[in-house]
Amino acid sequence: MGEQTVSRRGLLGAAGIGLLFGAAGGAGAGYAASHAATPADQAASTAAVPFHGEHQAGIATPVQDRLHFCAFDVITDSREALVALLRKWTDAAARMTAGQDAGPGGAVGGIPEAPPDDTGEALGLPPARLTITIGFGPTLFEKDGKDRFGLRSRRPAALVDLPHFPGDKLDPARCGGDLAIQACSDDPQVAVHAVRNLARIGFGVVAVRWSQLGFGKTSSTTPSEQTPRNLFGFKDGTNNIPGDDTEALRQHVWVAPEDGPDWMVGGSYLVARRIRMHIETWDRAPLAEQEQIVGRTKGEGAPLGAAREHDPVDLAKLPADSHVALSHPGANGGLRILRRGYSFVDGSDGLGRLDAGLFFIAYQRDPRKQFIPLQAKLSARDRMMEYLQHTGSGIWACPPGVRPGEFWGQRLFA
Amino acid sequence: MGEQTVSRRGLLGAAGIGLLFGAAGGAGAGYAASHAATPADQAASTAAVPFHGEHQAGIATPVQDRLHFCAFDVITDSREALVALLRKWTDAAARMTAGQDAGPGGAVGGIPEAPPDDTGEALGLPPARLTITIGFGPTLFEKDGKDRFGLRSRRPAALVDLPHFPGDKLDPARCGGDLAIQACSDDPQVAVHAVRNLARIGFGVVAVRWSQLGFGKTSSTTPSEQTPRNLFGFKDGTNNIPGDDTEALRQHVWVAPEDGPDWMVGGSYLVARRIRMHIETWDRAPLAEQEQIVGRTKGEGAPLGAAREHDPVDLAKLPADSHVALSHPGANGGLRILRRGYSFVDGSDGLGRLDAGLFFIAYQRDPRKQFIPLQAKLSARDRMMEYLQHTGSGIWACPPGVRPGEFWGQRLFA
Ligand code: HEM
Ligand code: HEM
Repeated sequence: MGEQTVSRRGLLGAAGIGLLFGAAGGAGAGYAASHAATPADQAASTAAVPFHGEHQAGIATPVQDRLHFCAFDVITDSREALVALLRKWTDAAARMTAGQDAGPGGAVGGIPEAPPDDTGEALGLPPARLTITIGFGPTLFEKDGKDRFGLRSRRPAALVDLPHFPGDKLDPARCGGDLAIQACSDDPQVAVHAVRNLARIGFGVVAVRWSQLGFGKTSSTTPSEQTPRNLFGFKDGTNNIPGDDTEALRQHVWVAPEDGPDWMVGGSYLVARRIRMHIETWDRAPLAEQEQIVGRTKGEGAPLGAAREHDPVDLAKLPADSHVALSHPGANGGLRILRRGYSFVDGSDGLGRLDAGLFFIAYQRDPRKQFIPLQAKLSARDRMMEYLQHTGSGIWACPPGVRPGEFWGQRLFA
Repeated sequence: MGEQTVSRRGLLGAAGIGLLFGAAGGAGAGYAASHAATPADQAASTAAVPFHGEHQAGIATPVQDRLHFCAFDVITDSREALVALLRKWTDAAARMTAGQDAGPGGAVGGIPEAPPDDTGEALGLPPARLTITIGFGPTLFEKDGKDRFGLRSRRPAALVDLPHFPGDKLDPARCGGDLAIQACSDDPQVAVHAVRNLARIGFGVVAVRWSQLGFGKTSSTTPSEQTPRNLFGFKDGTNNIPGDDTEALRQHVWVAPEDGPDWMVGGSYLVARRIRMHIETWDRAPLAEQEQIVGRTKGEGAPLGAAREHDPVDLAKLPADSHVALSHPGANGGLRILRRGYSFVDGSDGLGRLDAGLFFIAYQRDPRKQFIPLQAKLSARDRMMEYLQHTGSGIWACPPGVRPGEFWGQRLFA
């Protein structure tokens, strides 16, 4: 797959340019499609991100503009069928991220009267930095006390069930899932196409449990680009783990050999939370109050008491119950997570308000030491919680990247 | 507003370039942001579309990539409050489409402790070809037998309640609305921001009834650009009314003086249908069958029996129950509509499938002679109906464009 052929999207010459992990960071080339201002930005937003590597793409690679996230349930008890699916999915993901069609995959492939190998709606589109990232949920290892796939003993200790947090209002129809697929791209059509083709290939083996579209990124792993804004109107992602900070990634994101289990080394844990934001109430709060709640200014995004966005946070100058004061590493013994969330608007809530918010995604080395203690603290003390409601939730173990010929989770099933 | 000042988004020099109605058509400058390949395309996707003019923008102007559609109910019986809102909305729409902030608007504006004049999430973003188009629903003129705003006698005869069509499975929570706002932009953040700020300004006067995000356009009014594809994987919009075909627009889209009422002259009627597409079933239909159902080839988009996308349709070569054979003007006494729909994915349906489809939008001079007879025919005979389910619906009278100083619907309230 290294050649990045572009048969699906032969219309664009620039489509063959591959970005190396993190390499886009320094040059600002990872800049968002819809915010792109120069031809160089433009090239980046149509390019392909390499699929194969030590780590899965879509974690530390530059954050794309759009998201289609999908949780699947495995609807068979056959370990063989599951493994066969993971093989097909890996192959299809390698193809699609390189700008090719999804390939056959389905059991019926090759028969003359069979459906087309690809659903077609991405024909003619460039790869648009598509990444496809997979995660394995707790229920893949054990569901209702049953060990369907002989995986119980291989469940990572860090893949805990998330505890209940104060204020949680979780909708079971938006929680969990045996498998998760995170598809990110600068073109939503390309991200939707990817999930939809994996669902097509998985027919009879998996069923969609829930899915979430994110229309705009709310964080960045590329400090040189313009920081995106979330639906509270604030810059989000200013203090995030940069995708090219190998040392921080090693320390906070990638599972290390000493962490175990062996099949997760080089992988990471994904926590997703669908967080409804009460934007109508927020919009009636005075600017000064909004800034006190966040701990940063709205226009510039500077920490309170400082002048520029990237000035250091001085905790003494922030209200103790502000979001940044509570979540800053300095207030948490150095704890960091890699945030990769997206804004959503899912119609309205039937009560005259938009059903809008942040689909929060975080990657980390061990959720027991990172997301869980942090969210426990925020849900209890963050003043922003008044405007938030967590309505969906999930945790997945994302295995390391694959080499050509390998399949996702190969070492788990070895 | 002619100067197109860009205080909100001062970061981009190109943001001041205004596109004249239809002028973008010939040059292909209206090409989609995410599909943009040249710097010229790029400039177009960040530019401003003039707000003032004979017709509202967002109808014949080039179709942008993303949609946020919102139906509102007026929650007061005060005609004065409604008129005051329309004044504020018109002003805010003029500002936002020019790349400025939404402005105060709210009753509390100007008070030091008041909320900010803008919700902020579009700070730093270019206009991205934002258009904001308003429509008045039948219930604005009469609701439950009540004439709340003294408008009953001014209801256009063409603004009929849509009849029931075979196969309709309408969800009341996705139907109707006293007012409709169609916000289109190449950046979804900009479209969402526009709707959200109108909702903010309308607090106490209107409430969101339902809203729909469209992630990718499924039609084009710019024949020179690459035709987008819908979720069936087919090119959509090949045979649409081009935005620069003044004669076709006059004949099929704009309300003429002889049509009446006077306040609608230069306006148009908007019909929206939320159409669920059973993509999982579709994906298992063989290619040849899919093409027989549509009446065009999937790859090229050529009419069956022809070679190239823009070759003329020869009805004799198409199956009689194919979508194109039934909807082509040649089979309908020359009937045409201007289509401006968007693909959506609203999570999943709880049965293992994506809740995906097409948010169909059509503009026309008289729905009694255009959408209604056409949809009556399609719903009864179109083979594609097997894969479709209409789940939402609405009809609105979109008044003509405004001149600086005027407000939306001014002549209706005169
Ligand atoms: C809708 C919900 C949320 C909103 C609107 C939000 C918003 C923000 C904003 C505006 C910032 C400041 C800019 C920045 O440094 O990136 C920030 C920082 C941060 N947030 Fe959130 N956040 C949300 C939920 C969460 C959750 C659930 C967590 C983790 C449990 C979290 C963890 C963090 C962390 C670690 C930082 C960086 C703090 C620093 O290092 O200074 N946030 N968030
Ligand atoms: C999800 C539902 C629908 C899908 C997937 C769909 C798809 C298509 C496709 C692929 C074409 C051919 C390309 C083109 O000429 O643009 C087309 C053409 C057309 N469709 Fe639809 N359509 C849908 C619903 C409707 C509805 C509800 C109407 C009107 C009531 C309609 C009216 C038309 C018309 C007038 C044409 C142009 C035919 C011609 O002039 O050759 N469509 N549609």
